[in-house]
Amino acid sequence: MFNLKAFQKPAVSNNRLEALSDGVFAIVLTLLILEIRLPHVANPNSANLWRALAALSPKILSWLISFLVLTVFWVNHHHILCRARKSDYGLLWLNALALMAVSFIPFPTALLGEYPNSPVALSFFAVVMAFAGFTMSLLYQYVLHFLAEPSAEREFSFLKILIFGPGLYLLAIPAAWIFAPLAYAILIFIPCYFLLPKQRS
Amino acid sequence: MFNLKAFQKPAVSNNRLEALSDGVFAIVLTLLILEIRLPHVANPNSANLWRALAALSPKILSWLISFLVLTVFWVNHHHILCRARKSDYGLLWLNALALMAVSFIPFPTALLGEYPNSPVALSFFAVVMAFAGFTMSLLYQYVLHFLAEPSAEREFSFLKILIFGPGLYLLAIPAAWIFAPLAYAILIFIPCYFLLPKQRS
Amino acid sequence: MFNLKAFQKPAVSNNRLEALSDGVFAIVLTLLILEIRLPHVANPNSANLWRALAALSPKILSWLISFLVLTVFWVNHHHILCRARKSDYGLLWLNALALMAVSFIPFPTALLGEYPNSPVALSFFAVVMAFAGFTMSLLYQYVLHFLAEPSAEREFSFLKILIFGPGLYLLAIPAAWIFAPLAYAILIFIPCYFLLPKQRS
Amino acid sequence: MFNLKAFQKPAVSNNRLEALSDGVFAIVLTLLILEIRLPHVANPNSANLWRALAALSPKILSWLISFLVLTVFWVNHHHILCRARKSDYGLLWLNALALMAVSFIPFPTALLGEYPNSPVALSFFAVVMAFAGFTMSLLYQYVLHFLAEPSAEREFSFLKILIFGPGLYLLAIPAAWIFAPLAYAILIFIPCYFLLPKQRS
Repeated sequence: MFNLKAFQKPAVSNNRLEALSDGVFAIVLTLLILEIRLPHVANPNSANLWRALAALSPKILSWLISFLVLTVFWVNHHHILCRARKSDYGLLWLNALALMAVSFIPFPTALLGEYPNSPVALSFFAVVMAFAGFTMSLLYQYVLHFLAEPSAEREFSFLKILIFGPGLYLLAIPAAWIFAPLAYAILIFIPCYFLLPKQRS
Repeated sequence: MFNLKAFQKPAVSNNRLEALSDGVFAIVLTLLILEIRLPHVANPNSANLWRALAALSPKILSWLISFLVLTVFWVNHHHILCRARKSDYGLLWLNALALMAVSFIPFPTALLGEYPNSPVALSFFAVVMAFAGFTMSLLYQYVLHFLAEPSAEREFSFLKILIFGPGLYLLAIPAAWIFAPLAYAILIFIPCYFLLPKQRS
Repeated sequence: MFNLKAFQKPAVSNNRLEALSDGVFAIVLTLLILEIRLPHVANPNSANLWRALAALSPKILSWLISFLVLTVFWVNHHHILCRARKSDYGLLWLNALALMAVSFIPFPTALLGEYPNSPVALSFFAVVMAFAGFTMSLLYQYVLHFLAEPSAEREFSFLKILIFGPGLYLLAIPAAWIFAPLAYAILIFIPCYFLLPKQRS
Repeated sequence: MFNLKAFQKPAVSNNRLEALSDGVFAIVLTLLILEIRLPHVANPNSANLWRALAALSPKILSWLISFLVLTVFWVNHHHILCRARKSDYGLLWLNALALMAVSFIPFPTALLGEYPNSPVALSFFAVVMAFAGFTMSLLYQYVLHFLAEPSAEREFSFLKILIFGPGLYLLAIPAAWIFAPLAYAILIFIPCYFLLPKQRS
């Protein structure tokens, strides 16, 4: 009854899929800043304003982490779609799943910014990031198996990156319950690790 | 005096119509998450934070439904515009009507997220979705009759999908007044039904 | 010292100018809905929710007017840029001025939605719309005189539309102080008038 | 171990880099207006509404400055990317850094709008603008040295503009502590100065 082949009907062109995805990434990247707001300062002299600004540093940290992670996802997303020679409903819906995960990111970012020391907020953040990484990995494997050119060289390192990603994010969960700064270190390390393109040796 | 022919004057190119529409869809998809906010937790220990997060599940459910419906609308919209061989003012204004309905969706989504058990919120949500489905259907029929190539094969199944859509959403209204979970089941079923491309047998 | 010729240096390509402008239009169209929020209903039974929804009708009316006006501006903007055969700094900055006016629109829209019977809110709304119409007219005349092909047929009717636009909006100001519904009628009439493409007789 | 050459691996196509960047610029330009909100007026007669609107003028001023600065950045960004004949990871990450700075701008804009006479708010605004100008300059120099055609004429004036920019913004900091209007004059002067394309004499 449920027929996987049905998903291989040609769907929306990859150009428009990329346009929608770029739009979603651009908006998520920009919306993140809306969560950073200065609470009203009753007596706004210079000392009080500096103190209020300094108190926002956890929000700026969570904004920074999400910005980095989203840029890494955006690069991966582009690499994945470049591989697809055709387009089908499977790609369409796996892409929608990935965009759903990406567009959810402002919520855990705001949560972490408000409760920076809470292991619950840190774990929730890590789970959402891991889920987003997982949807990217799913999209990549679908493209590689159904839509890529068979002659395409298989970038195994890139695949490993994607499998690695969700796993690393999940590592931040136990860290959050043991020692919060360790969880932050993991969450910052992951996008920085993928910042540098891997070299084949 | 009112002359329908006047609307058949060439208008904005379809490329720019698609760019604006993709922009609106991408922004609506992403804005939905702004409605999900954690209320301030007075004593943010782990138990209280989990409870506050769990209390957000109705908002996450309404977000999920809207995201699914919007993706289905976006796919339909693309199929409709692909059919248009030319562009005129009729297409332009019916497209504006469809975008107006689409950009309205965050409001009933937020309403449903806040009052998840209210038959009023459920009915309002269903009416907006049905109206959006109706504008899509109108757009499709206009393109098919005035702008498509005559040789284009008529995808009757697709047309039926569009007529079906608004009707199904309206079914959720009586359901909302009888048994709220039934209305939710209908609202989730519709986009899932259109998730799978229909096969000609 | 101030040299108008300096503005005729080639600038950003028209493609990227259109992409940025489409982005701004799409976001403004979509942001408008964020101003419509249901105030918290203390006792959310069906009767109270209907009443709260009905109380939002002024906000929905101002949203509708802004949506219509913005669509008319978007169509005009596209027609104007289509005429430009080249690109220079004058076009760039007049376009920035027009986008500034367009991106300001959500503020008077929210103001009018909150104080629907205030002649101040109505006048402020009309002034912003007239200013936006004026920037469009400026852009159009600049393109026609400096960037269009000399052989291009001069659409005098279109030019008149643009000059007419700001003037009509200004008419809404005295109307706002005499009889608010008349001002609304003018504000709704203007985009509807430009909805129908004008015919050369 | 850390190898600069690794960043010269081909990355995302420049087209998609421009699409994402245009998206971010368009959204930031439009989000700025969300910070301008009329506080609730208890007795909304005409006199009180005018007074409330007039009280918003510092917010409108900070909005205007940010809009101008962002447009200048957008033009510079386009000029920079036009020069790049190829694309690599260095460009990708320096562009992400520039977008990060650009997408941060709504926060200092809102801060300045709320505390228009505070030297802290003015300094913070100037530092963010200077940092954004610095990231643009970095991007430009990277493109010129690694990605531009060697035969490309070196627009030294343009390079100077970029180096000048951050420096001028930093000048606003001491001015903010001496005499706030002087800092405003500097912040308005900088984008106006770059409004006019420089002439080679």
